[in-house]
Amino acid sequence: MADLKEAAWTLTEADIDALEIGAGILGTGGGGNPYIGKLRAREALRAGHVMRVLPMEALGDEDRVVSLGGIGAPLISFERIKEGREGLRCLRALEQRLDFTAAAVACEEIGGQNAMEPLITAAMAGLPVVDGDGMGRAFPEMQMTTYSIYGHSSTPSVMCDPHGNVVTFDHAITEKWHETMARACVIAQGGASTLASAPMTGAFFKRFAIPGSYTQAIGLGRAVMEARQAHEDPIAAICKREGGRHVFSGKIKDIHRHFRGGFNVGEAEIEGLDGYRGSQAHITIQNEFLVFRRDGEVEVVVPDLVVVLDLDSGLPITTELLRYGQRIAVLALPCHELLRSEDALAVIGPAAFGFPEIEYTPLPAKETP
Amino acid sequence: MADLKEAAWTLTEADIDALEIGAGILGTGGGGNPYIGKLRAREALRAGHVMRVLPMEALGDEDRVVSLGGIGAPLISFERIKEGREGLRCLRALEQRLDFTAAAVACEEIGGQNAMEPLITAAMAGLPVVDGDGMGRAFPEMQMTTYSIYGHSSTPSVMCDPHGNVVTFDHAITEKWHETMARACVIAQGGASTLASAPMTGAFFKRFAIPGSYTQAIGLGRAVMEARQAHEDPIAAICKREGGRHVFSGKIKDIHRHFRGGFNVGEAEIEGLDGYRGSQAHITIQNEFLVFRRDGEVEVVVPDLVVVLDLDSGLPITTELLRYGQRIAVLALPCHELLRSEDALAVIGPAAFGFPEIEYTPLPAKETP
Repeated sequence: MADLKEAAWTLTEADIDALEIGAGILGTGGGGNPYIGKLRAREALRAGHVMRVLPMEALGDEDRVVSLGGIGAPLISFERIKEGREGLRCLRALEQRLDFTAAAVACEEIGGQNAMEPLITAAMAGLPVVDGDGMGRAFPEMQMTTYSIYGHSSTPSVMCDPHGNVVTFDHAITEKWHETMARACVIAQGGASTLASAPMTGAFFKRFAIPGSYTQAIGLGRAVMEARQAHEDPIAAICKREGGRHVFSGKIKDIHRHFRGGFNVGEAEIEGLDGYRGSQAHITIQNEFLVFRRDGEVEVVVPDLVVVLDLDSGLPITTELLRYGQRIAVLALPCHELLRSEDALAVIGPAAFGFPEIEYTPLPAKETP
Repeated sequence: MADLKEAAWTLTEADIDALEIGAGILGTGGGGNPYIGKLRAREALRAGHVMRVLPMEALGDEDRVVSLGGIGAPLISFERIKEGREGLRCLRALEQRLDFTAAAVACEEIGGQNAMEPLITAAMAGLPVVDGDGMGRAFPEMQMTTYSIYGHSSTPSVMCDPHGNVVTFDHAITEKWHETMARACVIAQGGASTLASAPMTGAFFKRFAIPGSYTQAIGLGRAVMEARQAHEDPIAAICKREGGRHVFSGKIKDIHRHFRGGFNVGEAEIEGLDGYRGSQAHITIQNEFLVFRRDGEVEVVVPDLVVVLDLDSGLPITTELLRYGQRIAVLALPCHELLRSEDALAVIGPAAFGFPEIEYTPLPAKETP
């Protein structure tokens, strides 16, 4: 355990500022509001907690890693303040239930506030967070992690709400059943709880987690901040860094959102601006931005990333903060290769989100340096 | 443990036949269809399982008793066949979770199929069922037991569904929160699961359970069967035995039922027959029959029992089997004194069911022989 701490690097408040932006971009509108997450993480840092990120390769094959995150609708976690120790209660209850000691905490999804959740819990527990995650972005449902896709059973898991209620999902016959039961329960708990999944081995994590997520998100956020400071184009900086493409600029001319089955779902209509004048775009939402269409044609679809930024600042906008009249840029970023296998597409491809008619044509992959 | 078995009496198929009727009457329309319950109990008997009922006083003060029952909407448990060992899985998971051995199984509610559920599970586990229950009738929600009302915390509890999913409610901040979370989860599981609550001590059970429920229900069923065989009036036999009153005879002229929040809710309109000709009656339903009104005036209300019988056979009719045109008798039976305290009425009085305008006027209490 001492070894793991030595191998880890320590996060500063500036890292958290950068992570807010990077996790916001990778969150594709969801994963919980990253600004709220930043405030909570900063609070924990100022209270003296130390946040450490551990390179994946430093993890021993037999080490136990617990992945955790917020579960619920982003809109609710935006409006309702957490009690603060939900994640820690989940972790401790899980360790007690299964009689093991976690060596590190892992991230369920690097997108949005869920990038902060493991850092806060791990800091309180005196553990590092491994530099990887289960999505490389944000997705709305729990079975949509590379952990689940590549064979990890996420039960027994423990869910804690801000009131003090604790539920253990001892066994789910499939990962999707786990999601179904936990979703029903989180709605009953008020719509924003925290869940820690059954521990993974270090060996499994190193093979199937999206590698380097914290490094990526913090580096991405820092690139945006530097471009803004240098009065350069942050959108170009993001595209360059992530191998992405700026696919649209426009003004939101209509937005429909509602709360259904514990999710924020909706549609946004965008009227082209600048070089896109005369074109109409459309984005489909389920917690995250799922499908981008231009003039009726699908151009970007899950699992690739549809990112919405403020056109002027280059800062990401989450689904609950989209407003009529906003001037936005839409970016398409390629997802990680682990999300593109046949097994992965069965869980996170267009058909899994209710669009069987859309064929997934991968964006050109990000070049690895 | 050997002592407990010796003190218990063994049920026959004839007892189960009688229990079907008695539990149907005490179920006030709910608690799950007793006929389905009888078929399942008979199946277990014929498979060689032994069903034992233990007098309450034989229970040691330190013995651990686990109360269990079906949770969900009666309509669903009527249409959907159970896997069969849900209750046993709940019991074993709970024993393992809390590291104890149950001395006996207890009944959550003596009404309907839920009278059979503990017998089946206990028989499979080689345990007796204590002769008492938590309601003396059926109620739609879990916090409505004398166990919960008089201070037992029903968590940790374990819920199992027919698919094989297992959920533990480790901690609920109130009994009502337990109900809220379990209800959401049972809907997600398909609407009919089984739940075992945290063990009670024998001392607590002997003080706060409704005593003698199995004896009462079986005796009541037997009285109906005997009256029918002797061509006597079974309705009069029920009223005599339970200290009740025949309050209406009529024909169902309108029935509204729907499925809301995991419950069967509805209203029945009844047109008077025989001595009640010219009068109109109305019954309000939430899984059970809750309020009986005659010509607009409330005459019987929870926690007292509103019982609906087939006018000719004197056999009970559950809410899901009410039909337009049925000729029915309505009986009012007094509930047990444990359901009439101030603490009890706060949980199971008219206001708790959404009728704050109705004042509970107890029916004359049953005379104890």
